[in-house]
Amino acid sequence: MSETTGPRTERVDFRATSDPALLDSADRGEAHLLGYGELYSLWERQHWAVQDLDFTQDKLDWHERFDEEERFARMYGLSAFFIGEQRVAAELGPLMRAAPQEDMRLFLCTQIADEARHVAFFDRFYSEVDVLGVEGLEEKLAATSEHLNPEFGVLFDEMLKSRVDRLATEPEDLETLVEAITIYHMVIEGMLALTGQHFIIDYNEREGTLPGFVEGFINVARDEHRHVAFGARFLRDMARSDPRHVAAIQRTLGEIAPVAEGVLKPKWAPDDDDFEIFGISVTETRAFAFRALERRMKVIGLVAAA
Amino acid sequence: MSETTGPRTERVDFRATSDPALLDSADRGEAHLLGYGELYSLWERQHWAVQDLDFTQDKLDWHERFDEEERFARMYGLSAFFIGEQRVAAELGPLMRAAPQEDMRLFLCTQIADEARHVAFFDRFYSEVDVLGVEGLEEKLAATSEHLNPEFGVLFDEMLKSRVDRLATEPEDLETLVEAITIYHMVIEGMLALTGQHFIIDYNEREGTLPGFVEGFINVARDEHRHVAFGARFLRDMARSDPRHVAAIQRTLGEIAPVAEGVLKPKWAPDDDDFEIFGISVTETRAFAFRALERRMKVIGLVAAA
Ligand SMILES: [Fe+2]
Ligand SMILES: [Fe+2]
Ligand SMILES: [Fe+2]
Ligand SMILES: [Fe+2]
Repeated sequence: MSETTGPRTERVDFRATSDPALLDSADRGEAHLLGYGELYSLWERQHWAVQDLDFTQDKLDWHERFDEEERFARMYGLSAFFIGEQRVAAELGPLMRAAPQEDMRLFLCTQIADEARHVAFFDRFYSEVDVLGVEGLEEKLAATSEHLNPEFGVLFDEMLKSRVDRLATEPEDLETLVEAITIYHMVIEGMLALTGQHFIIDYNEREGTLPGFVEGFINVARDEHRHVAFGARFLRDMARSDPRHVAAIQRTLGEIAPVAEGVLKPKWAPDDDDFEIFGISVTETRAFAFRALERRMKVIGLVAAA
Repeated sequence: MSETTGPRTERVDFRATSDPALLDSADRGEAHLLGYGELYSLWERQHWAVQDLDFTQDKLDWHERFDEEERFARMYGLSAFFIGEQRVAAELGPLMRAAPQEDMRLFLCTQIADEARHVAFFDRFYSEVDVLGVEGLEEKLAATSEHLNPEFGVLFDEMLKSRVDRLATEPEDLETLVEAITIYHMVIEGMLALTGQHFIIDYNEREGTLPGFVEGFINVARDEHRHVAFGARFLRDMARSDPRHVAAIQRTLGEIAPVAEGVLKPKWAPDDDDFEIFGISVTETRAFAFRALERRMKVIGLVAAA
């Protein structure tokens, strides 16, 4: 079993997304990426409902099994996801309108609903488990945003938002769309979200904690693999059609790499890469994220395949 | 059975949307409208998949049962829907980003996926039935746009698009959002789409034609009732919060009414309101559309309840 796959990611429904990070062949730069219409159809089949989840045991775990310190540590990862999902849902609107082909746009429309479902998932988890002691979606978002580190704000509110604002007024600016998809699908979803999801799900499965959360978060992760598979397909098509797009992807990744590294580390963590959170060091977390990025970049055609 | 309801619209799943047009009590200005979170949850339960539909009989009907004249007449209604769904999917992006509350935004995210599903429905119907003899989504949209009348262009490309362009650059402009939702949810979906759907489904059910299309189009109509129920709730909340929003709704409806009337009539129809298409006169069609609008406006609080 390689570092970027585990029993969960060998499930048929995970592999069906064609995310290169799940495929050993991607190390050789080879992957059969789904087309936009196929990705749309996969979305239809992979529907799930937040209302079907049962958080009864999760509430007991949170308040009776976890101590104050563990609740605080867990809050860090959850906050980044809760707020992150809310930001990306809104920012996808202009990206979707700027898509140069109708079949790309149809897929992005389904991704927008997925991101809303992910917000609804966290909203319901926070309510039913009573994580914060406040009601109302806006109130929860405000209370939980205290746990974020400054790099999170730079990534979402500066780097992503500046591209999205430009696309909102200039939807025909294809180079900015390439930059935005690089930030959104390759870095935020592909490197950060899927890495966090991987270790959070693994940890809870090992400990036997938060079963309702784990069930929902596995669905979230499957959705994210499908989103990243779209991003890989889109960037590969763009890279093949114009060398300027290759330069745009490389430039954007270079600009964003130091910020992305910062997001992977809680703001209260000491300045030590061997520091462990839930049994995983910051170094291990980064290695996982960069390995997934490398596989995807090889398939897109940006790094010489081994 | 009143004019705006029929056996289909008395189904539990249709009434679950809380669209005022389906409720007799709306004549008295009374309706229990779902909240934004409830509308989101209803979306989760009302999922459907275009890939589950079977168009085998539809293809036989289209090519062997219908003559050239009937195919041409049917093309008018279908074209307006196919192109209309494609336009509204893209235009919803900036509306969603401009929503003033998170729970409103979450619902609009699900609506975006619905509109994409509606495009996918027409795309698959046109392909499998071979309506146009062309392949590719873009090619089909280009070929079918010949059937549209000029008012369709005014409504989508001028009236709706000007508001959406403004929201794309000024997402905090709430008055423009009220105008856009009036055009989108009350007129395009509430008056035009649901009216066309009603008569097209009825006609096919009476004739026993296009069973795959009817099954899918009933799902489309149920989605549209849910969208219109959101619009009614949003406009009622806005009207109650600020009298300037009441004025904005009225002004927009006054501006758009003559154009909306034009869209309800095929461009090749004679200048005679008793002209019938599929057994229904232009006058009857308009009466149905305006009755639905009246019920919704009463519930929003714009017209004195009877
Ligand atoms: Fe997400
Ligand atoms: Fe995502
Ligand atoms: Fe629609
Ligand atoms: Fe709609």
